[in-house]
Amino acid sequence: MIKTIEYIDGVVRMIDQTRLPAEKEFVDCRTIEEVGHAIKSMVIRGAPAIGVAAAMGVSLGADSIEASAFEGFYQELEEKCDRLGQSRPTAVNLAWAIKRMKNVAHNNKSLSVIELKSRLKEEALTILTEDIATNEAMGQHGQTLVEDGNVILTHCNAGALATAGFGTALGVVRASVNAGKNIRVLANETRPFLQGARLTTWELKEDGIPVKLITDNMCGFFMNKQEIDLVVVGADRIAANGDVANKIGTYMVAVLAKENNIPFYVAAPVSTLDLSLASGKEIPIEERSSEEVMTINNKRIAPEGVEAAHPAFDITPNHLVTAIITENGIARAPFTESLKALANQK
Amino acid sequence: MIKTIEYIDGVVRMIDQTRLPAEKEFVDCRTIEEVGHAIKSMVIRGAPAIGVAAAMGVSLGADSIEASAFEGFYQELEEKCDRLGQSRPTAVNLAWAIKRMKNVAHNNKSLSVIELKSRLKEEALTILTEDIATNEAMGQHGQTLVEDGNVILTHCNAGALATAGFGTALGVVRASVNAGKNIRVLANETRPFLQGARLTTWELKEDGIPVKLITDNMCGFFMNKQEIDLVVVGADRIAANGDVANKIGTYMVAVLAKENNIPFYVAAPVSTLDLSLASGKEIPIEERSSEEVMTINNKRIAPEGVEAAHPAFDITPNHLVTAIITENGIARAPFTESLKALANQK
Repeated sequence: MIKTIEYIDGVVRMIDQTRLPAEKEFVDCRTIEEVGHAIKSMVIRGAPAIGVAAAMGVSLGADSIEASAFEGFYQELEEKCDRLGQSRPTAVNLAWAIKRMKNVAHNNKSLSVIELKSRLKEEALTILTEDIATNEAMGQHGQTLVEDGNVILTHCNAGALATAGFGTALGVVRASVNAGKNIRVLANETRPFLQGARLTTWELKEDGIPVKLITDNMCGFFMNKQEIDLVVVGADRIAANGDVANKIGTYMVAVLAKENNIPFYVAAPVSTLDLSLASGKEIPIEERSSEEVMTINNKRIAPEGVEAAHPAFDITPNHLVTAIITENGIARAPFTESLKALANQK
Repeated sequence: MIKTIEYIDGVVRMIDQTRLPAEKEFVDCRTIEEVGHAIKSMVIRGAPAIGVAAAMGVSLGADSIEASAFEGFYQELEEKCDRLGQSRPTAVNLAWAIKRMKNVAHNNKSLSVIELKSRLKEEALTILTEDIATNEAMGQHGQTLVEDGNVILTHCNAGALATAGFGTALGVVRASVNAGKNIRVLANETRPFLQGARLTTWELKEDGIPVKLITDNMCGFFMNKQEIDLVVVGADRIAANGDVANKIGTYMVAVLAKENNIPFYVAAPVSTLDLSLASGKEIPIEERSSEEVMTINNKRIAPEGVEAAHPAFDITPNHLVTAIITENGIARAPFTESLKALANQK
């Protein structure tokens, strides 16, 4: 399995997810600005992976600061962090990772700047390691919801490529396979960026897990034919009441699952919870370029002069969510209580 | 406006809908077999347009028969019709048009074969003319359901290109505009064949009707934001109970419309009703090549070795259908009675 992201010798190396599966190219970032650009252009994507990349980016940013006293160092670091924080608005893991890195600096004022830079590098690597362990724990909880012979529908890519490894929704898939369950995956292609077609099928094929590709508008057809047993997706941000922001089309999947009495599960680490927001209405939805809708494989699909909309995420209201799977356990309604309990658990 | 299909001097000329909007090329069919191939390969598509093409194809087929006595002529015609009837399974207008043409031959046994060939050509042209008039009448009924300022969502292309002209669902749009209503259209791109992106936006742009393109998985987002007032789609076959077979994804749109209390209308001529079928369960669903899902603009979107499903249609159950708009009026539940009444109306 190719690593989503690595941090060696002052270089943050990411596999270029805009070019998979046709080309396996890597992007090397040597500055925090380059990491910000990689996040913005979706070289790396997926809320947990964005968090890991951001932490590594902050470490690169720290290394580039010349100030030798804490005050000057920290001020410059904050400015760099603010700019990085603006690269994408919806996934809360970006802000979460940046805050965690800033806290490390702030809580270690007594160290020399050289020691602090080393401490920040260590923290970024800890976030990477923790993310994989988190996903494995999430997978263990999640696989208890999966039965032998199940067909699992997923949307977008919430896999190893969306995290430091193992995946959130696909972590549940992998843990189910590891537990000896025979399962199959239906992957929504996930327009416009085709993460499902390009990334999810690729990951699962590499792992030898049976996967079939469908267009997003086919998932209702297969649910209605009772050929899907459960849905598992990831999340970019989850409000205190359990409303879930995730890749555009997730709401569609959830409504279709409800209509067909199919459980709809969200797998996400506690770092994706934003308990400061009462509901999904407060989650900012990124509007991306209409060119990403209009152009496929460098060729326009619609006539010149036609406009397209491109909201990159949507909100699935909590009443459509059967359960939220975290590394600390499984939350069910009422989510305001269950999510708070899991978030406070060590 | 470019004509979808024409029949002049032994040539059935169609605009090649697989190449729009990038290229405006025409395909000339000189035999019934060539017409069958054009239908199968979706050079021409849309239930009413398939009906018109089939009628013209039967006329070409008749012209090619050398038998001079009725018996030999009719036997050969039947064989040709049977093969043509197998080109696509879901749209009932194909069988409807072929049956109508065969009936014309059968009911005019007394004519010479030469006169019969001429009578069949005339019938094919009548079907074309009638189709446009039918769509205009349908539009008149349908526009009474549309209010000034409405935003209409449509799926696939049920426009001039799916018919001999004016369109079914887009006929309702055009009639609303002609009635002085300010309306806007949101067009689902309609994967995998992208009829919405390629054909619907093109048609509406040519007519100066405001249209915005979205991916199929975005329509729920806009419904939930209350930015869509009504849905109008076409149909490929409608069973006696009002279950509707239409382009894959229509079921998804209908479920989302119900969840958001948005009216879901189907616009289709009486020739699309198949009252011989009690419910949608009996409608055959065409499974097309997975290559049409896997490949966009001649480039593969998924890794080699991954499989895709490709049901080309789905069934929307009658309880999700607000009303069915025909040229004879508007049918509402219970559809078994209302559709029968409209079908029998002259």
